[in-house]
Parts: sequence; C-alpha cells; structure tokens
Amino acid sequence: MRASGIGVEAVMNPGRVSIVGAGPGDPELLTLKGARLLAEADAIVCDEGVKACFPPGCAVFDVGKRAGGGASNPQAEINALLVRLASQGLHVVRLKGGDPTIFGRGGEEALHLAAHGIPCEVIPGVSAMNAASAAAGIPLTHRGLSGGLTVLGGHAPHLERIDWEALVRQGGTWVFYMAKATVGIIAARLLARGADPALHLALIESAGLPAQSVRVQTLAEASRLALPALGDGPGLVIVGPTVALHFDLHPARSELNVDALPVSGLSQAPG
Amino acid sequence: MRASGIGVEAVMNPGRVSIVGAGPGDPELLTLKGARLLAEADAIVCDEGVKACFPPGCAVFDVGKRAGGGASNPQAEINALLVRLASQGLHVVRLKGGDPTIFGRGGEEALHLAAHGIPCEVIPGVSAMNAASAAAGIPLTHRGLSGGLTVLGGHAPHLERIDWEALVRQGGTWVFYMAKATVGIIAARLLARGADPALHLALIESAGLPAQSVRVQTLAEASRLALPALGDGPGLVIVGPTVALHFDLHPARSELNVDALPVSGLSQAPG
Repeated sequence: MRASGIGVEAVMNPGRVSIVGAGPGDPELLTLKGARLLAEADAIVCDEGVKACFPPGCAVFDVGKRAGGGASNPQAEINALLVRLASQGLHVVRLKGGDPTIFGRGGEEALHLAAHGIPCEVIPGVSAMNAASAAAGIPLTHRGLSGGLTVLGGHAPHLERIDWEALVRQGGTWVFYMAKATVGIIAARLLARGADPALHLALIESAGLPAQSVRVQTLAEASRLALPALGDGPGLVIVGPTVALHFDLHPARSELNVDALPVSGLSQAPG
Repeated sequence: MRASGIGVEAVMNPGRVSIVGAGPGDPELLTLKGARLLAEADAIVCDEGVKACFPPGCAVFDVGKRAGGGASNPQAEINALLVRLASQGLHVVRLKGGDPTIFGRGGEEALHLAAHGIPCEVIPGVSAMNAASAAAGIPLTHRGLSGGLTVLGGHAPHLERIDWEALVRQGGTWVFYMAKATVGIIAARLLARGADPALHLALIESAGLPAQSVRVQTLAEASRLALPALGDGPGLVIVGPTVALHFDLHPARSELNVDALPVSGLSQAPG
C-alpha cells in the first residue's frame, strides 16, 4: 500500500524485490536460489526471451525492450512497475538475462528501489561470457596464454568510448557483449592499434541454446570479411590467445566448420 | 577400460567428464544443470571447500590444493585422476569453485581430457565477481559510470605482469581475484600510474557466505593502510567508480562499518 500524502516517496509495509540473474538462456543454467525465489514469488517481472518455470497463478509482467532502442525509455517504466508492485506488499522477482550487474542494468533498478525504501537483494547469475566460453571451449583465462580479461560493450556507440591502444597493450582475453553486428569494426580497431593479425576471434551466438553457433576467424580475416550474424539470438565476441584452444577442444566441429560453411575467411586450425 | 598396448593413449569405451562450475560457495548458487549432473554422477572430483549435495554412495575425491602452492603440482595429479576414472567408463563430475574458465584451470583439464580422447563438457557457473558484486551492491557495469571491466589475478606474481598504465587509461571497473593479501600493493600501483586517489576500493571476502564481509576505502587510504584480511575465505577486490554505489545501496551497513570497525582509513559515504 502506498503511503498517502503529497510528496511522500517512502511506502508503508513494503514488499521486497529479488533481482535474479536467469543465466544466458538455457533454463537449466538458472541457480537453485533463483528457482526457489521464482517458486515463492507473488509477481515476476521479466525480459522478453527470459524463460523459466513460472509458478502457476503468479502474475508475470513481460517488459522486454525492443532491440535497437527507440525514443522511449522503458527502463523508467520498469523501475516504476517494480516500486508499484512491491508497494502493494508483494514479493517481486525481477528476472534478468545473464548476470544482473554485467550489462544488465540491475544496479539502476536496485538504486531506484533503495531510493524508495524498498528492500532489495541481487542474486547473481551465469553471465553470457561464461556460457559462451564453456560452449565454445574457449577459456577466459588460461595459464601461459591469458592472465586476465577485459569485458566491453559491443554496440557501435560503446566502441567509440574504448581506448583501443590501452586494450591492445593490456593483452589477455577481450570479450565484447552485444557484438554481433560489429565484428568487422572490432577487428579493424584492434589491428589499427597493433594487435596481431593472426590472433583469433570467435563469434558465439545463442550460447548454450539449441540455436548455438560458434565460428572462429583471424583478426586479419575479420577485418576483410567479418562473420555475419546467423540468427536473432544474442551474440558475443571473444578475441585473444585462448580462442585457438577451441580447435583443440572441438577438433571435429572445427573441421566441419571449415569444410561446410559458405562464409569465406574462416580460419583453419592453427599448426 | 584402458586400451592395452604400449604408447596407446586413447581409451576403449570411455566414460565422460562434466566440468561443472559450483558457484562461489553458497550451495544454492549452483545451477540446476550442475545439480542434476551431480545427482547422476558415478564419481565426483571436487576442490576443498566446494560443498554441494552429493548423491549417497557416489565416490567423492577431494583434490583441494593447499593454499600458497608448493613444489608439487597437484594439477597433473588431478588431470591423471580424471582420465583414470573416465577410462573405467564412469561419468565423472569435476566440480570446481566459481566458473571453470575464470582462474579455474578448467581449460587445462578439458585439454588434457581431449588429448586422451575422453568426451568432456563444461557447465558454466556463477563466478566469484558476480557474487561479490551482488552481495556488496557494486555493479560491475553501470550506465554513466562504468562501461566495462577488467578482470585480473591478484596474487603478487600476477601483479607483476599487469600493464598498470594501460589499465588506468582504460578505466571502467577493475576486479582482482585472490587479492586479499595485496590490497595495498594494488592501490599503490594504480596511484603510481595516475588513478584518482578518491576512487573507491572494496575488499569482499567470502561473498554470499555467512562469513561474508564487505569493506570499502579510497585508493589513497588503501595505499597508506590497506584493509587487512578478516578471515580464511576467498577475497576479491573491486576498484572503480561503481564502488561508491555501495553506500547508496547499503546505507545502514556502511554507516555501521564507518562507526564500528577498528581499522582507520575507512571511507565515509561520498557527497
């Protein structure tokens, strides 16, 4: 119940919000805690494409944002919806793809709830890069090859804010979220700042889902003819010395890729 | 059953190995898939401190490494154990803390199994940084504050391989795994390369566990008198502009910290 009175932001007898990372799409990659909270929830607010076992009779609000954005700011509407539901005394589960605080705007929602005096907890989830790494056989760190990783947004406006020279100097593994449409730009920027043209790049789409695809090319190949997106699912790019391990871990699959795919520029297994 | 014959590495009728990320320690942060594979396993090979529901009657091998390392290389023994068990036709679950491919050596084990012709899959898990971020109220990315993150090892030898100038130039959120004992060194290196002395650093121990602690200080404070480790659990350091959001998301807790903790140098909430 919302408190009466003009200008009063705090609520009487508030419910609470659990911001839950749903993982990368495979419903089995939800955590046990996430599954328990879903089963106990009074209301669920989820993004389009986030599927899980919702308890029967529970109110479900699909607030998926349209790809590409637009003039409206649905985040403000989502924030308001969470406050409204919790103010009715409900336990709300806000289910978000991946992990809530890596490109998930979980922090914005948590801040909004805190400012309104609504108890909130964040339950971490498996982020897309962990699922992509596991599915592709590309370790994010690996002794002797990569001692760390840098994780960046791959949308074109994100790329403008990256210090590419510092990135190349730092080395390690580079991960770009939401990078399906910018593979060629990423490769060109890295090469322009001195990255090794023989370094491998992987485009991983729909990691862990039936539509999953994993394709690898060198930076030189990607800068000439970048891998095109194959589907509508989320796409993530990994670049670095560990990408070549894909060929050792999935030898049959990479041979199949090289022989069967119509896209030129695919790399052979190194060595 | 191992194939007979001198020098033959491939095995007859091999079992398989599922390398499963157990998450950061809270058994409820295991994935549903991880829990299912554990329930189906013939044998489980786990690290010390990784606790989960093990099925009754299942053979469990605790191969936890001693902290601080030593002359022996237990990784080679673990690799050999996995091959030996799978070669007996067993379905082996190799349960690893966090996510198997971020500082987890999952890639090394997968490569060893692939070289021996043993089918292997990697099931991603919640990495320690996602749990620390959620527990501390410190988003790893946040619109307008941090558009990316760099993840590095925090053991002293790891720190020697970091290009600190490039790291500071890149900005964003900096995460150091296994950094409990090196807080002061990390702060000093960052400051020496031009990081803002008012930037906040969080030391998060035992994220998501009953012994969890979250403490924040500025880089300037940390370089003078770094936060000492409180317990034996894993410790992770996060540095960057999003760390200050901790105070907005946990106002009561941070006031308590500032008043109650004996360590000088703890920061007040900014603004």
